[in-house]
Amino acid sequence: MKKVRVLIRPKKGLLDPQGRAVREMLQDHGFKVGEVVVGKVVEMEVDDSQDVKTLVEKFIVNPLIEDYEIEET
Amino acid sequence: MKKVRVLIRPKKGLLDPQGRAVREMLQDHGFKVGEVVVGKVVEMEVDDSQDVKTLVEKFIVNPLIEDYEIEET
Repeated sequence: MKKVRVLIRPKKGLLDPQGRAVREMLQDHGFKVGEVVVGKVVEMEVDDSQDVKTLVEKFIVNPLIEDYEIEET
Repeated sequence: MKKVRVLIRPKKGLLDPQGRAVREMLQDHGFKVGEVVVGKVVEMEVDDSQDVKTLVEKFIVNPLIEDYEIEET
Protein backbone atom coordinates (compact mmCIF):
# COMPACT_ATOMS: atom_id res chain seq x y z
CA MET A 1 0.00 0.00 0.00
CA LYS A 2 1.14 3.53 -0.70
CA LYS A 3 -0.31 6.68 0.80
CA VAL A 4 -1.48 9.34 -1.58
CA ARG A 5 -2.91 12.78 -1.00
CA VAL A 6 -5.19 14.39 -3.53
CA LEU A 7 -5.61 18.17 -3.30
CA ILE A 8 -8.70 19.42 -5.06
CA ARG A 9 -9.48 23.06 -5.76
CA PRO A 10 -12.09 24.92 -7.74
CA LYS A 11 -10.68 25.63 -11.21
CA LYS A 12 -9.00 29.05 -11.55
CA GLY A 13 -11.51 31.53 -12.87
CA LEU A 14 -14.52 29.67 -11.56
CA LEU A 15 -16.41 31.02 -8.60
CA ASP A 16 -15.11 29.97 -5.22
CA PRO A 17 -17.82 31.28 -2.91
CA GLN A 18 -16.40 29.49 0.12
CA GLY A 19 -12.99 31.03 -0.45
CA ARG A 20 -14.49 34.47 -0.87
CA ALA A 21 -16.58 34.09 2.26
CA VAL A 22 -13.56 33.05 4.33
CA ARG A 23 -11.49 35.93 2.95
CA GLU A 24 -14.16 38.51 3.75
CA MET A 25 -14.75 37.10 7.20
CA LEU A 26 -11.03 37.22 8.01
CA GLN A 27 -10.70 40.77 6.68
CA ASP A 28 -13.76 41.83 8.70
CA HIS A 29 -11.90 40.54 11.75
CA GLY A 30 -8.89 42.68 10.89
CA PHE A 31 -6.60 40.06 9.38
CA LYS A 32 -4.46 41.04 6.40
CA VAL A 33 -5.11 38.30 3.91
CA GLY A 34 -5.09 38.11 0.13
CA GLU A 35 -6.59 35.38 -2.01
CA VAL A 36 -8.20 32.48 -0.15
CA VAL A 37 -9.03 29.18 -1.85
CA VAL A 38 -11.09 26.50 -0.14
CA GLY A 39 -10.87 22.99 -1.49
CA LYS A 40 -10.89 19.37 -0.46
CA VAL A 41 -8.21 16.91 0.47
CA VAL A 42 -8.60 13.15 0.10
CA GLU A 43 -5.93 10.95 1.67
CA MET A 44 -5.97 7.29 0.73
CA GLU A 45 -4.06 4.09 1.22
CA VAL A 46 -3.93 2.54 -2.23
CA ASP A 47 -2.50 -0.79 -3.31
CA ASP A 48 0.73 -0.32 -5.27
CA SER A 49 -0.85 -2.01 -8.27
CA GLN A 50 -3.55 0.61 -8.63
CA ASP A 51 -3.62 3.37 -11.21
CA VAL A 52 -4.21 6.35 -8.95
CA LYS A 53 -4.70 8.88 -11.74
CA THR A 54 -7.56 6.89 -13.27
CA LEU A 55 -9.16 6.32 -9.90
CA VAL A 56 -8.98 10.02 -9.07
CA GLU A 57 -10.20 11.29 -12.42
CA LYS A 58 -13.08 8.86 -12.62
CA PHE A 59 -14.28 8.88 -9.04
CA ILE A 60 -12.83 11.66 -6.92
CA VAL A 61 -12.66 14.90 -8.88
CA ASN A 62 -14.96 16.61 -11.32
CA PRO A 63 -12.48 17.78 -13.97
CA LEU A 64 -15.02 20.21 -15.44
CA ILE A 65 -14.93 22.39 -12.38
CA GLU A 66 -11.99 21.19 -10.30
CA ASP A 67 -8.21 21.06 -10.58
CA TYR A 68 -6.22 18.53 -8.64
CA GLU A 69 -2.75 17.48 -7.60
CA ILE A 70 -1.67 14.03 -6.46
CA GLU A 71 1.14 13.81 -3.89
CA GLU A 72 2.63 10.59 -2.58
CA THR A 73 3.20 10.96 1.15
CA MET B 1 2.53 38.13 1.76
CA LYS B 2 3.30 34.48 2.36
CA LYS B 3 1.30 31.55 1.05
CA VAL B 4 0.08 29.04 3.58
CA ARG B 5 -1.82 25.81 3.17
CA VAL B 6 -3.98 24.49 5.99
CA LEU B 7 -4.90 20.80 5.82
CA ILE B 8 -7.91 19.96 7.95
CA ARG B 9 -9.05 16.43 8.76
CA PRO B 10 -11.63 14.90 11.04
CA LYS B 11 -9.93 13.99 14.33
CA LYS B 12 -8.67 10.40 14.47
CA GLY B 13 -11.30 8.25 16.09
CA LEU B 14 -14.20 10.48 15.15
CA LEU B 15 -16.56 9.39 12.44
CA ASP B 16 -15.57 10.31 8.92
CA PRO B 17 -18.67 9.37 6.96
CA GLN B 18 -17.39 10.99 3.76
CA GLY B 19 -14.16 9.02 3.94
CA ARG B 20 -16.04 5.80 4.56
CA ALA B 21 -18.40 6.47 1.69
CA VAL B 22 -15.53 7.12 -0.72
CA ARG B 23 -13.71 3.99 0.42
CA GLU B 24 -16.75 1.79 -0.04
CA MET B 25 -17.56 3.29 -3.41
CA LEU B 26 -14.01 2.69 -4.65
CA GLN B 27 -13.99 -0.87 -3.33
CA ASP B 28 -17.35 -1.52 -4.99
CA HIS B 29 -15.71 -0.46 -8.23
CA GLY B 30 -12.92 -2.98 -7.72
CA PHE B 31 -10.16 -0.69 -6.49
CA LYS B 32 -7.85 -1.96 -3.77
CA VAL B 33 -7.84 0.82 -1.22
CA GLY B 34 -7.37 0.98 2.52
CA GLU B 35 -8.24 3.87 4.79
CA VAL B 36 -9.66 6.97 3.12
CA VAL B 37 -9.87 10.33 4.88
CA VAL B 38 -11.74 13.26 3.41
CA GLY B 39 -10.92 16.71 4.70
CA LYS B 40 -10.59 20.32 3.65
CA VAL B 41 -7.73 22.41 2.39
CA VAL B 42 -7.59 26.18 2.77
CA GLU B 43 -4.86 28.02 0.88
CA MET B 44 -4.32 31.66 1.79
CA GLU B 45 -2.10 34.58 1.06
CA VAL B 46 -1.37 36.08 4.45
CA ASP B 47 0.59 39.19 5.33
CA ASP B 48 3.94 38.30 6.91
CA SER B 49 2.96 40.16 10.06
CA GLN B 50 -0.02 37.90 10.76
CA ASP B 51 -0.14 35.15 13.34
CA VAL B 52 -1.36 32.29 11.18
CA LYS B 53 -1.85 29.82 14.03
CA THR B 54 -4.23 32.15 15.88
CA LEU B 55 -6.13 32.95 12.70
CA VAL B 56 -6.52 29.27 11.88
CA GLU B 57 -7.49 28.15 15.37
CA LYS B 58 -10.01 30.93 15.89
CA PHE B 59 -11.60 31.09 12.47
CA ILE B 60 -10.76 28.17 10.21
CA VAL B 61 -10.77 24.92 12.16
CA ASN B 62 -12.98 23.48 14.85
CA PRO B 63 -10.40 21.99 17.21
CA LEU B 64 -13.05 19.90 18.97
CA ILE B 65 -13.59 17.75 15.93
CA GLU B 66 -10.77 18.58 13.53
CA ASP B 67 -6.99 18.21 13.37
CA TYR B 68 -4.94 20.50 11.19
CA GLU B 69 -1.51 21.09 9.77
CA ILE B 70 -0.11 24.38 8.47
CA GLU B 71 2.37 24.25 5.59
CA GLU B 72 4.10 27.28 4.09
CA THR B 73 4.16 26.86 0.32
